Order: sequence, then C-alpha cells, then structure tokens
Amino acid sequence: MQTIIKPNKSQWPLISKRPGINAKDLSNTVSNILSTVKKDQDKALFAMAQKYDNAKLDNLKVSEEEINSALKNIDPALKEAIDLARKNITKFHQSQIVKEEIVETTKGVTCWRKTIAIEKVGLYIPGGSAPLFSSILMLGIPAKIAQCKEIIICTPANKEGKIDNALLYTAATIGIRNIYKVGGSQAIAAMAYGTQSIPAVNKIFGPGNQYVTEAKRLIQKDGIAIDMPAGPSEVLIIADETSVPAFIAADLLAQAEHGPDSQVMLLSNKQEVIDKTLKALDVQLVNLPRQDIATRALRNSKAILLDSIQDCIAFSNEYAPEHLIIATEKLIDYIGDIQNAGSVFLGNYSCESAGDYASGTNHTLPTNGYAKNYSGVSLDSFVKKITFQRLSREGLSNIGPSIEKMASAEQLYGHKNAVTIRLEKLNEDAEAVKEQIITQA
Amino acid sequence: MQTIIKPNKSQWPLISKRPGINAKDLSNTVSNILSTVKKDQDKALFAMAQKYDNAKLDNLKVSEEEINSALKNIDPALKEAIDLARKNITKFHQSQIVKEEIVETTKGVTCWRKTIAIEKVGLYIPGGSAPLFSSILMLGIPAKIAQCKEIIICTPANKEGKIDNALLYTAATIGIRNIYKVGGSQAIAAMAYGTQSIPAVNKIFGPGNQYVTEAKRLIQKDGIAIDMPAGPSEVLIIADETSVPAFIAADLLAQAEHGPDSQVMLLSNKQEVIDKTLKALDVQLVNLPRQDIATRALRNSKAILLDSIQDCIAFSNEYAPEHLIIATEKLIDYIGDIQNAGSVFLGNYSCESAGDYASGTNHTLPTNGYAKNYSGVSLDSFVKKITFQRLSREGLSNIGPSIEKMASAEQLYGHKNAVTIRLEKLNEDAEAVKEQIITQA
Repeated sequence: MQTIIKPNKSQWPLISKRPGINAKDLSNTVSNILSTVKKDQDKALFAMAQKYDNAKLDNLKVSEEEINSALKNIDPALKEAIDLARKNITKFHQSQIVKEEIVETTKGVTCWRKTIAIEKVGLYIPGGSAPLFSSILMLGIPAKIAQCKEIIICTPANKEGKIDNALLYTAATIGIRNIYKVGGSQAIAAMAYGTQSIPAVNKIFGPGNQYVTEAKRLIQKDGIAIDMPAGPSEVLIIADETSVPAFIAADLLAQAEHGPDSQVMLLSNKQEVIDKTLKALDVQLVNLPRQDIATRALRNSKAILLDSIQDCIAFSNEYAPEHLIIATEKLIDYIGDIQNAGSVFLGNYSCESAGDYASGTNHTLPTNGYAKNYSGVSLDSFVKKITFQRLSREGLSNIGPSIEKMASAEQLYGHKNAVTIRLEKLNEDAEAVKEQIITQA
Repeated sequence: MQTIIKPNKSQWPLISKRPGINAKDLSNTVSNILSTVKKDQDKALFAMAQKYDNAKLDNLKVSEEEINSALKNIDPALKEAIDLARKNITKFHQSQIVKEEIVETTKGVTCWRKTIAIEKVGLYIPGGSAPLFSSILMLGIPAKIAQCKEIIICTPANKEGKIDNALLYTAATIGIRNIYKVGGSQAIAAMAYGTQSIPAVNKIFGPGNQYVTEAKRLIQKDGIAIDMPAGPSEVLIIADETSVPAFIAADLLAQAEHGPDSQVMLLSNKQEVIDKTLKALDVQLVNLPRQDIATRALRNSKAILLDSIQDCIAFSNEYAPEHLIIATEKLIDYIGDIQNAGSVFLGNYSCESAGDYASGTNHTLPTNGYAKNYSGVSLDSFVKKITFQRLSREGLSNIGPSIEKMASAEQLYGHKNAVTIRLEKLNEDAEAVKEQIITQA
C-alpha cells in the first residue's frame, strides 16, 4: 500500500481516481457472441458451454432431480447458515415495501403511484472457482418480495455439466427453480433475447467478468434494463485511536482478496494507527489462501493520513466508496456528513463481510464512484412505479384553464384542445341544466 | 390510422412494435462534439452556439438582470397558470418522501437506509419553436424537494442570444438561477465534463432530439447517470360505448402533434366507437396548427378492435404505453390488471394534457416499451439510498458463525477471517471476565 501524508485538498480528486482498469475493447467479441446467440439460440449455447466452460451438456435447464439431490446433499451447517442469512435479508428487504399515498392535488384532481413488479427478471451468477450462492440470496430474495412473475437464473456448469449444491439449494429455498447452465456473455444474450429453452427477460441483474459487463452494457440498446454499471470492488476504512488495527487489517484483506483490480483505502487522522494497521496487514497476509490476489490488489491501494476524521469523511465523499467502514467509537458525529457511499459499516464489530452475507443489507452495490449517483440493489430495483390520475368534472374545471394557458404558450394547441373540448361540454351541460330550471320555473 | 380488426393474440407483439425510428448513426458526430467540448470547454460552446443556434453570445450564463426582467415581463395569466401547476406538482412529489425504517434483523444487528440527494444534477431543456417551461417544472421541482445541492439548466438561446421569459420565470420561481445558454449534445457534454463556466454534474435529465439522446447514451460510459433512455412519445387509449369519441379524438391529436415519429393507438371492443372517433379525428385535424406533423404521426398509428376491454388491457400490457388513457366509465374492474404503462389517465375527464402540465404527476415517462422495466421521473430519480449497519458485540456473536461458514463455502477466507478475528477477541474478553470473577471469588 502506498502511504500518502496529508495531501492537499486539491489533490483529492486525483487520489480518488480508481486504478485504470485494463479493459480490453471487448465490444466486437461480445457483439459477435450476442448475435450468434440471437440467431442460433439453444444450439449456440450448447456449443459455447463446450467451448468456454469445457462442459458437455444434455440439457440447458437444471432438472428437478438435480435440484432435489442438492436439497438432500447440502452440508447441514451451510444450510443453516444460508437459512439465517435468508431470514435477515428477507426481513430487511420486506421493510422496503412502500405504501403509496393517494393525493388530491386540487379539488377533484387525484394522483397516486402504484408499485408493480417488473414481470420477468434474469439473475446472472458467475461460475469460476467458488459458487457465489450469496448473490442468489441478494438478488433472488428482493425479486421474490417484489413478486416478479418470472425469475430465472443463469450460471455456468462445471466440467461435469453440474451446478454446485449450495447454489441449487439457495435458489430452491427462495423459490427459484428455473435455472439454466449458461455462463458468460452468452448467458446475458440468452436472457436478453430469449432462446427455445430460456425466456427473454425485462431486466438483468448480477455480477460478472469483463465479458458479462460488456454484454450487459450492449443489450441495453435493445431496451433491456440492467441493475447498474459495474466496476472492481472496493472498500474505504476510516480509523482513529479507538479502532482495532488487526480488525481493520482483516477488513482490508477481505476486500483485497476479491481480485487483483480491487482497491482498498485506509484513512486516519493518526499516523500510529496507519503504521499498526500496515504491520497487522503483513502478518495476516502470510496466512491468506488468496495471498497472491490480495498482494496485487494492495499495490493499487492507499493509506492516507489526514488532519481529522471530518476530513476523512470529506475525502470519502469525494471517493464515493462501494463499502465504507467507520471503525471508530464516536459515530454520531460523523454519520450525518456521509454523502456518497454504497453501504456503510459502523463501529468495530460491523465488518464488511457481515453485509456481504448475512446482516440483511444487499451486497450488490455501486462501485467505481457510482455511489455518487446510483443506489445499491434493493426492492426498488425489481419494481416500477406507475402514476395514475383521475380528474372529476370539477377537477378539470379547476385546472383546465391553466392547462389551456400553458399548452398555448408551448404552442401545443392539440394539448389545449383536449381540455377546451371538455370544458365546452361541461359548459353546455351546465347551460342545459339552467335552461331546464328556467323552463320548469 | 390503420384499422386492425380482432388480430390474433400471437400477432400482438408484432403490432406492438414501434415504427422503426429513422435513427441515423450519430455516434461519430456526437462523439466529436463531446470530445471538442471536453478539450476546448467554454470556447467550444461559444463557437457551437454560433454554428448551431446562430446565436452570438456574450456570456454562457443567464445574468441576474435577464432573470429579473423575465420575472417582471411574464404574462400574468401564464404566471398564474404556472404557479398552479407548480403547487400541484410540488404536492404530489412531496408525497413521495419516504421515511425509512430501522430494522433489527437479528438481535444486535441493525440495518437501515438513508435517502440522500444526488449532489449535482443538470436539466436539459430543448429549444426550438416553443419554450418547454413545463419540463423545468417536472424536473426542477423534484430536484428541489430532494435537496440536490447544485441544480443547473442548459437550454439553447434564440438568435438574439436570449432565453424565453416563461422558461426563466419558471426556473427562478422554483429557485434555480444557474441557467446556461447551451443547447444540443454540446450541452450534455458540458454538464457531463464541466467547463470553465458550467459545473460537471452527477446525473443529467431532460428531453431532446436524436443528438441529445445519443450524447446522453454516450456519457454514461464516463460514469454520469441519466434519467432514462428516450424514444418518441406515444399514447394508447382504451374506449368503449361510455367514452366520448370527440374527447378521444382530441387526445389522439394532442399526442400526434408532438412529432412525426409519435405513435397513437386506439383500442376498443366496439367498431362503432372506432368509426365515430376516426370521424371526429378528421374534423378536428383540419383546425390543428400542427396538422402536418399530426398527419404524419397518424400514419404510424393504429386503431384496433378487440373482443373485450379485458383484451384491450392485455394488449396494452404487451405494448407498455408511455401514456394510457382508459376512457371508460367502468374503471374499478380494469385498474388492477394494468401491468405496464408510464402514466395512466382514468375516465372521460382525465385528459393526458392534465398530466403533461398541471395535475401534479410527472410528464417525464418511459417510452418505446420501456414502461416494462422503467418508472417515470419522480422524487426517487434525484436521490440515492445508502444502507447503514451497526453490529454490536452480541450481534456479531449471533451471526458471525454463519458468515464464517458461508465465506468458507465461497472460498473467501479473508472474508471469514474478518469475522474470526473479532469473535476470538470477544472470546478472550469473555475469558478475561470469567477469570476476574474466579480470582475475586
């Protein structure tokens, strides 16, 4: 880690820049995969499973037998852990259900919003060395609470053509049984355009490598929505003399082990805290299985001494970290100043891995400074809100003349006429009533 | 308008397809404008105002004198109309403020969300023949309610280098005084990257032509968010024997006058209603100032006879209209079935122009079928939600072992260790207390 001592505020934006992602231009490669899947559908997916995952598949869809076997064979202790996480994530995301108000803006003019699930959503779960069943919890649970009608999962099979038990257990336990053995950008293509086996969806969620990310970027042109733009994972930790250096070091390493392009930032108002933490980091790094990855990530990483914790918060707002850990005992003074972050962890016992797995918050968060303008995944990500309005005759009488005036000023006389023709009818009706009264009198 | 009689359900997706937008590939042109503005900043903007808007400008920023003069010279009747609209839009968008719950998911594990305004937002307001001050209301009011710290407007000046009084009045009356005389894709570039005069923003809102739309698409690569993808405006009207054909015709024309690429759809379960409406349409079209535009839009448009109003709703869900008018007296039976729409207008007196201007709902809505996966602009569009969590020692004791189990299963031992090191400390502390008690006993 590079240590920076009291940088000038004018340097903060430069220091906040993420390490240049060595992104090859994958547009052509990924475009070709997208159009091949669009054209050849299932056939293309079978061929690509063979080519990229070295998996010879009989079926794209995971069978009921495979799911039932996973339910039987899952490690009971892991099952219990997943169940606890599921319960907490469900509780927190259920609390995000909003009851919308009905508002009468002017007498006779009633407006409201209705929350409706996005009908079809696709969750992409990467393969690779480890089964990321936690991402199924984080995406599948809010999709279920939102009541999306169709929820599908795509994830690559291993060489034996199988999906990990923990993945299948997690999906099944939250009620998702449409799982397809497709990985990479071809999975994104399949969910975007549909194939014989895989239904097309309206919105695609989930992490992935550069190919997956590029595919998600490209399919938006065709009207499919995505969760959010992606970048390497990152943490920023703010520490003072009340923090525990060994804990901070562990949190920095937990982030650094994600990938060589991860970035970890340590901010403090005390040189001693930085020194002690870096020492603890060296000690813990030796025993880390993913030592090599973490070491490379630490090369992109910075420890920064600043004048005060207030300055650390200000720097953090400039950086806009995906994860922000405030590892200090005083917290109340600082919370109100946090402007830009994906998820915030408060105090010495709120480690980031709690939020990654089991506390209840979502772990799909904006990286790369996107926390300035994006929220993490939540129940909101799986719904849309439709506005409704109802004007009574009185309502239109009340606001109609204003609409006529404004539409004329914008030179949209068709808009004006839609009001005028109705107001004329109301006047005619009123006249008719008046005449009737006179005639009867 | 093309009339289609009882099409088979299998044909609905094809009929729902929007007319192919004659989108030229503007990527190169717009990319060049973006990079010129990035490099030459204000200088480029002055030159482009001259080139594209034929406006010789002294300053990019609208002066206080210009704003004050607009406040004095605005037509009082228009001012009153704008004020009524402002009041209604404010009332409805204020009702969208959500009080987030604090949730204890497991004893000692507390999670919550905090709503925080996106710090800097830019609103683009197109120029052209008419001043679209209504878009300032629709974007500026929720930005103000959200408490965005910096709200700027870019809009092209006319040949005299001036901005319309109604635009300046509307902006000033909701408290926006940073207004810049920049139009087209160069305005999007200026707000995305910043210039000497114009601050860079985090998110850009607002309608525009193909150049503006392409610029908004491109700048997302650099981390700037946008309101939503754009397409031509559209309305779908569902009518039965309780509808008023002249009203429906007026609503169809109000939509058709937007642009030659607009699309209007009329659905009914009664041939007679369609016939009467098309007749009324011909009558009204003659007197429409934008007759030529509307006529061209009607060429893309369809009247469809279906078996029932239920089928009309089902078709509408497939089409996912920006605006949906249900011009029938029975409404309660249908509302619950609406799945995909931007904004819904209920009954004979809820004309679309009410929502365009003054009822209180937002008029920035998803077009082109995006209503399947996007909401219209609302207060939500101007905020992000940050999750917070706080684990007490007890909280970590309760969920720590589950986190360890899950992290191990995902082979992320750094994540596991961040918990283990803390649990060990808790055990040590507990042991120390025990020992102390024994010693004292």
